[in-house]
Amino acid sequence: MLPGSHRADGVGDLTRAMVRVEVAWARVLGSDIEAEVRDWTPELDPVEVEAAGNPVLPLVSALRSRVSATVHTGLTSQDVLDTALVLLARDAVARVRADLTRIARALGRLADEHRGSVMAGRTLTQHAVPITFGLKAARWLDSVLDAVTDVDRLRYPVQCGGAAGTLSRAALSADPLEAAAAFARELDLVWPGLPWHTQRAPITRIGDALVRVCDALGVFAADVLTLGRPEIAEVREGAEPGRGGSSTMPHKQNPVLAVLVNSASLRAPGLGAQLHLCAARAVDERPDGAWHAEWPALLGLLELGVVAASQAAELAEGLRVFPDVMARRAEAAAGDLLAERGGEGDLAGYLGAADAFVDRVLERWRGGQDGD
Amino acid sequence: MLPGSHRADGVGDLTRAMVRVEVAWARVLGSDIEAEVRDWTPELDPVEVEAAGNPVLPLVSALRSRVSATVHTGLTSQDVLDTALVLLARDAVARVRADLTRIARALGRLADEHRGSVMAGRTLTQHAVPITFGLKAARWLDSVLDAVTDVDRLRYPVQCGGAAGTLSRAALSADPLEAAAAFARELDLVWPGLPWHTQRAPITRIGDALVRVCDALGVFAADVLTLGRPEIAEVREGAEPGRGGSSTMPHKQNPVLAVLVNSASLRAPGLGAQLHLCAARAVDERPDGAWHAEWPALLGLLELGVVAASQAAELAEGLRVFPDVMARRAEAAAGDLLAERGGEGDLAGYLGAADAFVDRVLERWRGGQDGD
Amino acid sequence: MLPGSHRADGVGDLTRAMVRVEVAWARVLGSDIEAEVRDWTPELDPVEVEAAGNPVLPLVSALRSRVSATVHTGLTSQDVLDTALVLLARDAVARVRADLTRIARALGRLADEHRGSVMAGRTLTQHAVPITFGLKAARWLDSVLDAVTDVDRLRYPVQCGGAAGTLSRAALSADPLEAAAAFARELDLVWPGLPWHTQRAPITRIGDALVRVCDALGVFAADVLTLGRPEIAEVREGAEPGRGGSSTMPHKQNPVLAVLVNSASLRAPGLGAQLHLCAARAVDERPDGAWHAEWPALLGLLELGVVAASQAAELAEGLRVFPDVMARRAEAAAGDLLAERGGEGDLAGYLGAADAFVDRVLERWRGGQDGD
Amino acid sequence: MLPGSHRADGVGDLTRAMVRVEVAWARVLGSDIEAEVRDWTPELDPVEVEAAGNPVLPLVSALRSRVSATVHTGLTSQDVLDTALVLLARDAVARVRADLTRIARALGRLADEHRGSVMAGRTLTQHAVPITFGLKAARWLDSVLDAVTDVDRLRYPVQCGGAAGTLSRAALSADPLEAAAAFARELDLVWPGLPWHTQRAPITRIGDALVRVCDALGVFAADVLTLGRPEIAEVREGAEPGRGGSSTMPHKQNPVLAVLVNSASLRAPGLGAQLHLCAARAVDERPDGAWHAEWPALLGLLELGVVAASQAAELAEGLRVFPDVMARRAEAAAGDLLAERGGEGDLAGYLGAADAFVDRVLERWRGGQDGD
Repeated sequence: MLPGSHRADGVGDLTRAMVRVEVAWARVLGSDIEAEVRDWTPELDPVEVEAAGNPVLPLVSALRSRVSATVHTGLTSQDVLDTALVLLARDAVARVRADLTRIARALGRLADEHRGSVMAGRTLTQHAVPITFGLKAARWLDSVLDAVTDVDRLRYPVQCGGAAGTLSRAALSADPLEAAAAFARELDLVWPGLPWHTQRAPITRIGDALVRVCDALGVFAADVLTLGRPEIAEVREGAEPGRGGSSTMPHKQNPVLAVLVNSASLRAPGLGAQLHLCAARAVDERPDGAWHAEWPALLGLLELGVVAASQAAELAEGLRVFPDVMARRAEAAAGDLLAERGGEGDLAGYLGAADAFVDRVLERWRGGQDGD
Repeated sequence: MLPGSHRADGVGDLTRAMVRVEVAWARVLGSDIEAEVRDWTPELDPVEVEAAGNPVLPLVSALRSRVSATVHTGLTSQDVLDTALVLLARDAVARVRADLTRIARALGRLADEHRGSVMAGRTLTQHAVPITFGLKAARWLDSVLDAVTDVDRLRYPVQCGGAAGTLSRAALSADPLEAAAAFARELDLVWPGLPWHTQRAPITRIGDALVRVCDALGVFAADVLTLGRPEIAEVREGAEPGRGGSSTMPHKQNPVLAVLVNSASLRAPGLGAQLHLCAARAVDERPDGAWHAEWPALLGLLELGVVAASQAAELAEGLRVFPDVMARRAEAAAGDLLAERGGEGDLAGYLGAADAFVDRVLERWRGGQDGD
Repeated sequence: MLPGSHRADGVGDLTRAMVRVEVAWARVLGSDIEAEVRDWTPELDPVEVEAAGNPVLPLVSALRSRVSATVHTGLTSQDVLDTALVLLARDAVARVRADLTRIARALGRLADEHRGSVMAGRTLTQHAVPITFGLKAARWLDSVLDAVTDVDRLRYPVQCGGAAGTLSRAALSADPLEAAAAFARELDLVWPGLPWHTQRAPITRIGDALVRVCDALGVFAADVLTLGRPEIAEVREGAEPGRGGSSTMPHKQNPVLAVLVNSASLRAPGLGAQLHLCAARAVDERPDGAWHAEWPALLGLLELGVVAASQAAELAEGLRVFPDVMARRAEAAAGDLLAERGGEGDLAGYLGAADAFVDRVLERWRGGQDGD
Repeated sequence: MLPGSHRADGVGDLTRAMVRVEVAWARVLGSDIEAEVRDWTPELDPVEVEAAGNPVLPLVSALRSRVSATVHTGLTSQDVLDTALVLLARDAVARVRADLTRIARALGRLADEHRGSVMAGRTLTQHAVPITFGLKAARWLDSVLDAVTDVDRLRYPVQCGGAAGTLSRAALSADPLEAAAAFARELDLVWPGLPWHTQRAPITRIGDALVRVCDALGVFAADVLTLGRPEIAEVREGAEPGRGGSSTMPHKQNPVLAVLVNSASLRAPGLGAQLHLCAARAVDERPDGAWHAEWPALLGLLELGVVAASQAAELAEGLRVFPDVMARRAEAAAGDLLAERGGEGDLAGYLGAADAFVDRVLERWRGGQDGD
């Protein structure tokens, strides 16, 4: 219903992720139930979900009705749910990462192409000194690369602790620690050496990285919106048949993607803060509400990030740039733009290190690509 | 999937609410299409929703395929969506209000019954001076009544402004202002005399009232959680077969409702802040992202409030209180609890105005009931 | 150090406010110490403040060294601090209210003067249909009047409960409830009939009202910033010698006031949310951290509101409007602005109810003035 | 005035930090003015600060009155202010880091000492299975080590871009890029290769790391508060003469430090979110309000982090642990604590990998120490 949510298809499929987790643990316990649950997404009774306080107990019941092998034994609900959330996060971040690569490529191209496109620099909404559109694109790119750095640094740990984080019940396997490590291997996750039921840095790190992605994309979108105002008209969101129309005004070509990405950047910080608040309230051996408040914030942020990155990629790839409009405006405003240096000289001669900065960012980008 | 979401059934049915809005406007335009769209909830193509930037355009297309009468003409997307959100808010708040009444009744009963149940007062986690459980329940109740006051003060305005808030296109009707007023009457909403596309106080007031509901319920739930710790054991969440069980520990009786209400109170402030942030960015004649960021926050808050109030009502009605445990503990701690007065006298003689305060709150509550 | 903080002079003087509170309570206890503490603002030892967890204990010690009358007896720290915060809030809100009146007057004048100043309506950053600048100013005004409504509805309660909210120690006076009421009268505050140590609606209501003030002012400022971009140039912040200059660019005339008001509107929602979060964690008879986290948020919001309202008043009063620029742009864009109606007619003939809306808001404003 | 603020002495001294920045840039320009401004902290006229929109212009004026050498030329206000904020952040983080080391040492000692101290594990407030206090301390420590990791990863960049981020005015020096690099060397900061006026990841990374510190300390404090309730009494905040007293109750020993650290953890997430919101609104070549809204949030977070870490260090070092109380309670609750395994066996035999987890964390801690 919310514009763009189809881009996040499957991102929040918690039930399916929990099934994957139980399959992995079953294998640790010695059974292979994968074939029995392939494509199986049980409907969980919401009344039972609430009664249990989380969807794991109903899932395990459904699973035990379906398969005869021993399942779940030794885990606690939080082990399953946290690990499922981590799987969803890893998948979502991978999608975000792929779109950041697309965005970076498109912005890199713009930065290079427009390193000579002089335009007015604007500070506090007013004309300052000349810059180039290439530099602006390079700055957008540099922020995206900062976000990539943060995203690539993320680690995805398995959760495995049993009732109160001692693995007391994992006695089914001779070596509980080895069971936890095997669990991680099954899911290609990291076993951090101990459970993290009440140490939520893995979650807040994912959250912060996604918020930072949205910060970077938000600036890009907001700049596009400003530069695309009809009075400025230095860029325009690419047109797509049927997109951006108005229900009443035939001439309208609304910058829908930019608006939606901009919108996402207004929402992300609050969701990230929610994760931190929950992390700070992760008391006892499992908290009395803070854990539950974490799920919707994390799932919301995963969806937000996936949608925004996908929209921003399309926005970046389709962006139309009008260097002639930029040039004409800068020329008309040259008196102001050169006032700092006494109004003398020409615009192109007052670009300082703009070109060097473009090079620097492009180098960083290309370096990162090699490093992929 | 999130525990308790079934309690908010229908709360976020935006499509259906938009249909109701279009039906009302059609009537203003002179057609009655209600029978043609009864129980009709069209599937909207998410790609079209994104292309339009909101679900209204696809809805109108679907509607025009279904009915032959003139529909939507003179409205803008925001008129439809905002009015639909207001309808959903009014319905949700009514549900919250009904549950607040249940909660107030249950807490009023507890306050009255336990005005003589002496217990340890606790400040900064430590024993302070004696109070009564009746006073504690009265304070919970007083906060609920504060929330009721705020909720009852809410007004629900129709949105009606056309493309840029001038009603320029409402020329179909001879008197655009009268059309707007009629639109409001059809939906039993208020016509505030002008559109509020970029004046979002109606939304932030709804949001703030719901956050205040969650604040009040959160304190209640958090107190129940503390008093229900096994070491304190002065109250306990009512048992329900199958509720609060653990996936591994047979003895466990988790205070599920209190945990979930507590959890809601950790989420509500952030959602309310989101609405304010959007209100503060409501620029131009329709903003470039802030409006879109408002919908999920408002819908989220409506659901949160409905679920939390319903859970809190069940919690209040089923709460088990153990005055003997309270009494024994207070007696054992009498040395500390009476230290302020030099350790002399008895607990019951050091309750100050506790009873008068209980009366005061009960009076307020009964007064409010008459006023209903 | 932060720009504009001098406008909030005295707003956060908690020590002095606490002295006022103790003076009032002393009078309830039968002593008049006002003359002895006039203009006295003791330096409190920060180590002692932390040791006590709040500044009240050190203040009382200092007070007892200075005056011989009995002071403070029967109160708890929270009674003093909460009441002092309420006094500061009342004073700050009064300053905000006065500036809102100035803003309303200035905007009312603009709305009236420019009801015929046709300009382009803008939605999602793009040209929509024509509006008038008078309508835009009327909408800003209407939001300010909404904020005024909320501000005028605020009530300022005294806090009076003793150690755990039972007034157990107020036995010094024959009638503790009458003592509390007298305390309120001394300070011209409301005695709500019971303490509100853990019922924080009085605080969140103040907070929400101030956030709503900042929301309204933020939209005004942000619109001014957009319309004041050199490419649009339809309004400009009034010039003041020495204001808005750049450290390097002589031509620069930065819209400093609008930037700062805009900035405030980005900060207010988070501070308001902080107050709600604290309200939702107000557990036991005094909470273990939530109360302490409330003070800086409330004080911060008081300062923010006072500064922003003062800056916005100056901005509104000095705003320069260029109807000819608006007219030229609208004419040039007439093809788009009239597209909804098929491109025919003239701009002035397609303003719908704009003028009626201006009347409506001006009427509301004038009505409110009478009602003052 | 706020409890503990003396622990953050000098943390927010922006004026002095700006002086340091100007001294460094003067050296890049070829002059050594350090001796002339040693211990000089000019009073800046707040009216001028507001007129300029920031304190840099008044500072530069004051500086030019004081020294005859060329100063500031080539920089923009944002270069000075951002670099000053980075200096303050680096200093504050260093103080936080030192206190985290103290906390880690104290918690490491507790983890080791109490690896055999059996206690009740608690989930959702109820007894679960046995754990050890050593494990609990190890988990606190592990979270602190996570925060240390994040803190140690921070980089502190110089800001150097001139009016619009092109270094156009740095022509005074033959090689602007070399000038920027030299500027960084003077201050022992990193020159990131380009300005970051509108790329705020350096700021949000600092913010996120500090929020994560507060998250970790908040859980520690909240657990101490719960375990220190008189009904549980398994730990107690260390006593300090004069600390934690009540203004009326002689017996009271309030856990002041834990309360204040807990309080800080309720505030940090909102401040961090503020930084992200500003980062997402960093438009144009300098934004129209988002930059200004960043300063108080960052300065507030620096102070919060320094104070909380200092308080938490004292709390950790002085914490009193009562293993006998833990043991007695666990024995009394053994029926429940062992229910998972059918109620058989003894508590010490049902600790799973608790000891191995303690080892693991202690190893991590010792490894980190070597790696310092």
